[in-house]
Amino acid sequence: MPLKKRLYEIIFEADTPRGKVFDVALLVVILISILLVLLESVPSINARHRSALRIMEWVITGIFTVEYFIRILVVKHPFRYVTSFYGIIDLLAVVPTYLSLVFVGSQSLAVIRAIRLLRIFRIFKLNRYTMAGKNLTLAMKASREKIFVFLFFVINVVLIVGTLMYLIEGPENGFTSIPTSIYWAIVTMTTVGYGDISPQTPGGQLLAGLLMIAGYAIIAVPTGIVTAEMIRSSPHQNTQVCPHCLHDKHEDDARYCKKCGGKLN
Amino acid sequence: MPLKKRLYEIIFEADTPRGKVFDVALLVVILISILLVLLESVPSINARHRSALRIMEWVITGIFTVEYFIRILVVKHPFRYVTSFYGIIDLLAVVPTYLSLVFVGSQSLAVIRAIRLLRIFRIFKLNRYTMAGKNLTLAMKASREKIFVFLFFVINVVLIVGTLMYLIEGPENGFTSIPTSIYWAIVTMTTVGYGDISPQTPGGQLLAGLLMIAGYAIIAVPTGIVTAEMIRSSPHQNTQVCPHCLHDKHEDDARYCKKCGGKLN
Amino acid sequence: MPLKKRLYEIIFEADTPRGKVFDVALLVVILISILLVLLESVPSINARHRSALRIMEWVITGIFTVEYFIRILVVKHPFRYVTSFYGIIDLLAVVPTYLSLVFVGSQSLAVIRAIRLLRIFRIFKLNRYTMAGKNLTLAMKASREKIFVFLFFVINVVLIVGTLMYLIEGPENGFTSIPTSIYWAIVTMTTVGYGDISPQTPGGQLLAGLLMIAGYAIIAVPTGIVTAEMIRSSPHQNTQVCPHCLHDKHEDDARYCKKCGGKLN
Amino acid sequence: MPLKKRLYEIIFEADTPRGKVFDVALLVVILISILLVLLESVPSINARHRSALRIMEWVITGIFTVEYFIRILVVKHPFRYVTSFYGIIDLLAVVPTYLSLVFVGSQSLAVIRAIRLLRIFRIFKLNRYTMAGKNLTLAMKASREKIFVFLFFVINVVLIVGTLMYLIEGPENGFTSIPTSIYWAIVTMTTVGYGDISPQTPGGQLLAGLLMIAGYAIIAVPTGIVTAEMIRSSPHQNTQVCPHCLHDKHEDDARYCKKCGGKLN
Repeated sequence: MPLKKRLYEIIFEADTPRGKVFDVALLVVILISILLVLLESVPSINARHRSALRIMEWVITGIFTVEYFIRILVVKHPFRYVTSFYGIIDLLAVVPTYLSLVFVGSQSLAVIRAIRLLRIFRIFKLNRYTMAGKNLTLAMKASREKIFVFLFFVINVVLIVGTLMYLIEGPENGFTSIPTSIYWAIVTMTTVGYGDISPQTPGGQLLAGLLMIAGYAIIAVPTGIVTAEMIRSSPHQNTQVCPHCLHDKHEDDARYCKKCGGKLN
Repeated sequence: MPLKKRLYEIIFEADTPRGKVFDVALLVVILISILLVLLESVPSINARHRSALRIMEWVITGIFTVEYFIRILVVKHPFRYVTSFYGIIDLLAVVPTYLSLVFVGSQSLAVIRAIRLLRIFRIFKLNRYTMAGKNLTLAMKASREKIFVFLFFVINVVLIVGTLMYLIEGPENGFTSIPTSIYWAIVTMTTVGYGDISPQTPGGQLLAGLLMIAGYAIIAVPTGIVTAEMIRSSPHQNTQVCPHCLHDKHEDDARYCKKCGGKLN
Repeated sequence: MPLKKRLYEIIFEADTPRGKVFDVALLVVILISILLVLLESVPSINARHRSALRIMEWVITGIFTVEYFIRILVVKHPFRYVTSFYGIIDLLAVVPTYLSLVFVGSQSLAVIRAIRLLRIFRIFKLNRYTMAGKNLTLAMKASREKIFVFLFFVINVVLIVGTLMYLIEGPENGFTSIPTSIYWAIVTMTTVGYGDISPQTPGGQLLAGLLMIAGYAIIAVPTGIVTAEMIRSSPHQNTQVCPHCLHDKHEDDARYCKKCGGKLN
Repeated sequence: MPLKKRLYEIIFEADTPRGKVFDVALLVVILISILLVLLESVPSINARHRSALRIMEWVITGIFTVEYFIRILVVKHPFRYVTSFYGIIDLLAVVPTYLSLVFVGSQSLAVIRAIRLLRIFRIFKLNRYTMAGKNLTLAMKASREKIFVFLFFVINVVLIVGTLMYLIEGPENGFTSIPTSIYWAIVTMTTVGYGDISPQTPGGQLLAGLLMIAGYAIIAVPTGIVTAEMIRSSPHQNTQVCPHCLHDKHEDDARYCKKCGGKLN
């Protein structure tokens, strides 16, 4: 078997023993490299092991770079791979370290490698997980408009309430500008509530209270949207295909095709 | 074509090329004017560019004022427009700047112009979005009573718990008055939790803990209300009955009964 | 018509003009008296108008006391009224003021009068609201066990995590005792997050992070419980009674009684 | 009746009077022992009653130890008991106190005894509660994959946003390291919002605002997942088909078809 084909099998396929070994090894290396980034950012650790961390970081980046180019060489449609989701992630996984030569600290961005872990699902044939992921994405897609409208509404609220608070409380109470007040409104409406800025005047506290209750009730909207969507897209539908008209979305309890009336198996 | 009719077409209609251009231009101006308000409120920026910002603000307000009057002139039923939702918003969009001559700072209220952006949906024929908006509003309307009852309940809880905390913790722990304590109760029950006021005594912390768990569980109520409503108003199943087997509950796209295969009307 | 009957009509009935006037007046007085309690607790206001507030407070309490006794006198079954929900509330509405003669400050508890506002729904014949209230209560009742089990689980989690944090962080980081740590765990798990106590050590922050994500996901449980219940108890059921077997819970689409098979009207 | 059998009946069975007494006594002792742990950790109380608390703690541990061994002696399959859920909990309930001889403070871990309270449900024959518990667990199990995928997504978000904030805000604003920034991201996304760390720069506040709105909307996902699952597993409708008109979807308590009035099997 030609080298290229063998490499392809190892790197891209996960069901051959060699392929599995490679993928698992890859996952381990990814996890290590993320750990490196975290550790490197901790002053105390960085002070002691700086150089060691940097070296390992470069070694791993080297491995990923080589891997990336091999992938391009062995894949059937290099361009399609490079422009694919995985292809872009694989590239972004190595760029930060090289960037760090120009922009100090940018190597931290290598945490984006975490996304590469998505391969876990493929390797371990966790189809039910990929299915679950698909379902979630579908539900989100289906409620796209509703969520967009909802966000438009939220943005208007924080914009207006933020401005009112700026006028009511003013800079002396920490609402130093309208953008800051809008930031406060978001912090409050989403019930995060840092407390770094908080209303001091009775009027401000009243308005804040109304905003909180609004946010507390409004959270119901996105939840309702997504939930309704998920219930609709819930596995009451199966994928059997009608032998007569090839229509393929039938409910579990369907005995006849709802399109052509033909009997389902 | 008379001028009035041409103007009407440009200003009110969005499907003619001229109309679209006008609306898009309008959106851009609105966004700029909001940006101006935000920037003007930032001390550092205001210090340097005050006059420039004020001038641009007045220019834009001028544009909006002219636009508003033209709308009144060219529309068929001026009164109906003036009293319509959009008419009121269009007016409120210019008032603040003029008010700022009397009340310093009131120009900030011009952020209300954000609501004018609602036109986006009309311009770009985002019917599915307007539909989504309608659905949301309907779901909210349908659960109006439930939500009202829920709020009545919440208000009673914060009123009573707030008073109890005032008696338990007292002014020395920041619960300076019952209104303040009620404010704290809202901050806590909605899980915002600024921490600007927080219980110090064991008794107070116990009561606070109960309130938190209550709030944590009670959030389920509005969510449940809205979700149930949205599922009910979900447009997927219709109620036509199969003439052959009397099976009801068919999907909108069903042409044959999935139970007996009979043709649906 | 004897005085007693007239009084009964005025006080207990809301559909006679006199009855309505009385009830509305009552609501106004209740709102005023709550406002009084709030104002009295504000130091600045109290300093200036103490006596005036106290006098009004006593006047209103007098009115409520008289009203309470009249209710007992004119009602058909005094005992049943006194022991009824409204009877108890009406009593609790006057007690605090008298208590304040013994325990200073207890008059604040008069805020409990807010509950008397429940009568609003009866007065204005807001049956749809009382229905909504009933539905909510039913949904809550129906999910009683689930919520109880859920709380049992939550209590165990905060108990154990709280203890662990006490051991990890210790008094020097604000976790002065296990009860305090449990209080912190509740504040964190319910996503209130005051920040008056927060983990300082990496270990503590890791555990806290896990607790937060848990709390963030676990909120789904009560929501799911209540929502599922509400959908189930949603007005797919009507209240028509079967003419044959008097069974009274039928779904909207029922044409025959599911108990005795008799035709429904 | 041999001693062993009698003991078995008392300790393991809850429906004999003796068994019930034993179990209730056990519950009381468990509650007391947890209270002891809490009190012992309170400095002021500990200072005064240290020895008394320690003694009671040892007495109770002694009781539990004896109980544990008796359980092993009298149960039919000792090994199966020891390795069962309850067996492990019963063991963990005594270990901490003995550990405290080696590791000071570890006795606090005795709070794990709270889990033993699960027996409440068995003792008081709260089958509906155990059912409820089962339902909840099932719903959770059924949405296992979805929740896992969701967590994978959340972890990626906090990892990347955390790193970005570390680069934007930097140590001088409290984001001392990437792990700390990730901790902040979790605190923010879950809407806990301690405020011990909060963004100071406009850029940081903007990113934080986006993360909050994301977290505020994303909470909808686990909620949707669990709710959809619970509704699906809601035990109200069964799927028996009417032999006369083939109508399915009958409620559990239906004896006649609500469509054609025919008798159901």
